[in-house]
Amino acid sequence: MEGDKPTEEKPKSQAQDAPKEENMVEGPDGQMMSRKAYKKLMKKLEKEKRKEETKKRVEAEQAKSKKKEDEDLGEYVKDPNDPCADKFGDLELCRSTVLPEEGKSVYDKYKRVKNITEELKDQVVTIRARVHRVTGKGGAIFIILRESFSTLQACLFQNDGVSSGMCEYARRIPKESLVIITGIVHVPENPIKKCTQQVEIHIQEIWNHHKSVPRLPINLDDAANVVLNQKLEDEDHKEEETKEERGKKKTIIVGQNTRLNNRILDLRVPANQGILRVGSGICRYFREFLLERDFTEIHTPKLIGGTSEGGAEVFKTDYFGTEACLAQSPQLYKQMGVTCDLERVFEIGPVFRAEKSFTPRHLCEFTGLDLEMAFYEHYFEVVDTICELFGYIFENLNKTYSKEIEAVRTQYPFEDFVFKKEVPKFKFVEACDILKEAGYEQNPHKDLETENEEALGKIVKEKYGTDFFVVYNYPIEARPFYTMLNPDDPEYTHSYDFFMRGQEIMSGAQRIHDPEMLTERAIAKEVPPETIQDYINCFQYGAYPHAGGGIGLERVLKLFLGIHNIRKCSMFPRDPKRLTP
Amino acid sequence: MEGDKPTEEKPKSQAQDAPKEENMVEGPDGQMMSRKAYKKLMKKLEKEKRKEETKKRVEAEQAKSKKKEDEDLGEYVKDPNDPCADKFGDLELCRSTVLPEEGKSVYDKYKRVKNITEELKDQVVTIRARVHRVTGKGGAIFIILRESFSTLQACLFQNDGVSSGMCEYARRIPKESLVIITGIVHVPENPIKKCTQQVEIHIQEIWNHHKSVPRLPINLDDAANVVLNQKLEDEDHKEEETKEERGKKKTIIVGQNTRLNNRILDLRVPANQGILRVGSGICRYFREFLLERDFTEIHTPKLIGGTSEGGAEVFKTDYFGTEACLAQSPQLYKQMGVTCDLERVFEIGPVFRAEKSFTPRHLCEFTGLDLEMAFYEHYFEVVDTICELFGYIFENLNKTYSKEIEAVRTQYPFEDFVFKKEVPKFKFVEACDILKEAGYEQNPHKDLETENEEALGKIVKEKYGTDFFVVYNYPIEARPFYTMLNPDDPEYTHSYDFFMRGQEIMSGAQRIHDPEMLTERAIAKEVPPETIQDYINCFQYGAYPHAGGGIGLERVLKLFLGIHNIRKCSMFPRDPKRLTP
Repeated sequence: MEGDKPTEEKPKSQAQDAPKEENMVEGPDGQMMSRKAYKKLMKKLEKEKRKEETKKRVEAEQAKSKKKEDEDLGEYVKDPNDPCADKFGDLELCRSTVLPEEGKSVYDKYKRVKNITEELKDQVVTIRARVHRVTGKGGAIFIILRESFSTLQACLFQNDGVSSGMCEYARRIPKESLVIITGIVHVPENPIKKCTQQVEIHIQEIWNHHKSVPRLPINLDDAANVVLNQKLEDEDHKEEETKEERGKKKTIIVGQNTRLNNRILDLRVPANQGILRVGSGICRYFREFLLERDFTEIHTPKLIGGTSEGGAEVFKTDYFGTEACLAQSPQLYKQMGVTCDLERVFEIGPVFRAEKSFTPRHLCEFTGLDLEMAFYEHYFEVVDTICELFGYIFENLNKTYSKEIEAVRTQYPFEDFVFKKEVPKFKFVEACDILKEAGYEQNPHKDLETENEEALGKIVKEKYGTDFFVVYNYPIEARPFYTMLNPDDPEYTHSYDFFMRGQEIMSGAQRIHDPEMLTERAIAKEVPPETIQDYINCFQYGAYPHAGGGIGLERVLKLFLGIHNIRKCSMFPRDPKRLTP
Repeated sequence: MEGDKPTEEKPKSQAQDAPKEENMVEGPDGQMMSRKAYKKLMKKLEKEKRKEETKKRVEAEQAKSKKKEDEDLGEYVKDPNDPCADKFGDLELCRSTVLPEEGKSVYDKYKRVKNITEELKDQVVTIRARVHRVTGKGGAIFIILRESFSTLQACLFQNDGVSSGMCEYARRIPKESLVIITGIVHVPENPIKKCTQQVEIHIQEIWNHHKSVPRLPINLDDAANVVLNQKLEDEDHKEEETKEERGKKKTIIVGQNTRLNNRILDLRVPANQGILRVGSGICRYFREFLLERDFTEIHTPKLIGGTSEGGAEVFKTDYFGTEACLAQSPQLYKQMGVTCDLERVFEIGPVFRAEKSFTPRHLCEFTGLDLEMAFYEHYFEVVDTICELFGYIFENLNKTYSKEIEAVRTQYPFEDFVFKKEVPKFKFVEACDILKEAGYEQNPHKDLETENEEALGKIVKEKYGTDFFVVYNYPIEARPFYTMLNPDDPEYTHSYDFFMRGQEIMSGAQRIHDPEMLTERAIAKEVPPETIQDYINCFQYGAYPHAGGGIGLERVLKLFLGIHNIRKCSMFPRDPKRLTP
């Protein structure tokens, strides 16, 4: 190769434009070319040929191994003479052909995995669950069954009651299939690692209730791997899978996009089961608390004539010839709910924001937990109610959803969310002072910057031992026109933000309930009053002083469980690039 | 006049084209015209003049009476020397200037109207409530106070503690103003008609907390009138107000459109307060029942890539450059919720239908109560759960919301909704036979016609004594492609409808959970499978047999309370002509 160099280093134009005739040979396509070029071409062709051969060999090997795997995963054809032929096999698709027997309940017949405990020792139980994983071979097969975030080991040992065919059948059941098994509960001497249930089932019968395809688009074990640095999951914008180093070992991290593209499987991961169920719990306790306090649940329109907060980033639709917007908040409607004499209202519903934002804390559609409440004398009546509300939610989540919370923690380790019954409340300028003392700059007439909110969260956690606090009396510039000004502090408003782990999860305020003042403030904030006349007019007919706020469900969920990316906290998240599934 | 007739009866062309010259005179504008025409014109002008004069006189009288009324309703200027000057007047706008005293609760200070009963006899109480009506004059003023659907009489009698100025001030308080009063609870000898509370307050102090404008766009007493024929309310498409005859009396009926244009006042009518609160109750018990049975609440996206049920009547929006639709149902997402291992899910959320329908039972946006549930052997497990669910809702509404129900009944009399714990279930063909026997025609291979549903409702009510029943096993033609066929009855499906008072309030079915069968059925129903491939693929990875249904909140509310127009059951209804308020 080295000998060629001088020639090659000549300027190409020379070498090509003026070939010496005595050096010319015929190339493979019959065209004349220089010896050197010919030599080079031959080398190239040979290289390509070798590459092609390698490729073919690899493909052949892969095909062979796939064939073998397919055989392994393929249908097991049951021998009709199998002594256990009536104890295993594929069930027909369930099409409700057999009516339940009078007086007999299927809930007595089928046990839930989470309920299979030592108390059932030596009893015969029937369970429907997913095949999470199968190990073992020959006459000893181990199946990990999964039902939501509960797991249970079931085994087949070849013996009088279990044939080798039955073992082979079980071994080949595709992961994620739903099976119905019957067996005896055994209590093993040693704890069963990797299973939530500390008993095992010795299988007597095993039936495939609904079969999965043999190959899954994501590996659920990988998707359930412990993730120490959650930000790594975001990086699949570049790469489908990434790995996290732990000492010398590397663990596969399934990226967030891959997960969302296969959400139906991703959601089966125990941590995600936990997140979904804790989300349901937040709504449950939110309502329970408020209904107990005479709040009325309302449902306000999502299709509205104007924009709900005067913002520009709205989704628009044609509404029988006129233009409608998707509500960015139920703000004005819940205020009407108070003023029409319900006095205390709440709503849980979708909120739409056409923001082209890709941060791990924004969604284009999220679930708003909104409330609005008349008060008698001071908006702190409302602030205190909301403090109690959150206390109630957090306390009950910890009490009732501890298993779900642990399922999340197992995969995404996080520090417990700490809160105190007495919620610390800081005046905005106090918060600025606290920040200043700690070396952060914050203009006392502008809204808190995100970094300063985080810093404040850390300082408050250290000083007051809580992840949950309130800042109130925000500067005029930071709040919308309908916020009541503080008459005792003219540059500030009767407004408040609630924080979890240094991130805002609820914004609220006393609202102006006087038409004149509302008009004045609209003008001052450059909102043309004629565009909001209906809203202003609402307060003409006797209005309660009132305050409220809007909470983002996914954000509360994210911060309670220490999740980094909000997309994990929405069942089917929507961002500017994602409209499916 | 009679003498003119022959001339007038001549063909016009003749009479006008050839007037005799000797009959011509000069008209008021200098133009020549016939004597007859002149006479006629003069008569006409005189008539117009008289009409104009009458109009002016009436206007003058109206202006005079309005001026008098305005004086009556005008601000009462308090005499600073009034001996009761510190006991009445207008409060400043509540701007949260006084912090609540440590340890003192405003809830001890202010009593609710509904809680003012005989037990408080002779006690001094403070109440905040609306001024519903003021009667009396001089030294005896009666105020009916209203708080939601509770009403209470309060009186001022001129005496040592109450000045004449105080009485006059109270008399002039505009209706709908919020007042704070303090007074002594008296128990009168005779029952107080027209008030829910059977005690009265002798006022010691009266303060206007938030003043209403003196003239309201609708009269709340009219809007609260008893309505025997609810259909009359619909007729304001032609006329703003109509009247209902009762013997010799006529009662003003405020039309539905007038109501909706002034919804903020209309909703204050006790019947509407009742409807809103019963609606909240339905959601409450729906959730309570399902959460108790291990259902998980989910929130599925309303912005979706395709149409949710393949229908054409969807609202569309631009989603960052691609087209998105507003979900017509959470159908596919809740099925994914089941299949991703939640097994039992429910959702309460908005449902959008771009149907150009103006019936009293359709809305373009309504609240869907959706549920979906895995079952073990037969979809009746789900049907039975839904029967129990409704029983739970109805029973608890009657128990807890009896006052709200009565508030509705007072204005819109209706027969109690009757249901039985054992819900009658009819096979579709049985329902057809029942109809046939009663003389109704119904094709057993087509969906039930609306009139037949109503007829069936009446027959079932008569025979079985219930307003609530189920029809199942609908013909293939009546159901969407994803409905499981009944293998034992090839022309029929595993589907069901639930009925209240002969109207369908829930449609549901066992869904096909097999990708191949789903593809086959899509093709048979002319849905191109490639447009729903993601949906089909969901069932590849092991799927539970499952069934569910979707309930329209407003429709349940309408039928439970015997309301004619569904617009009354939505807080801010949306139909093709209404996008506000």
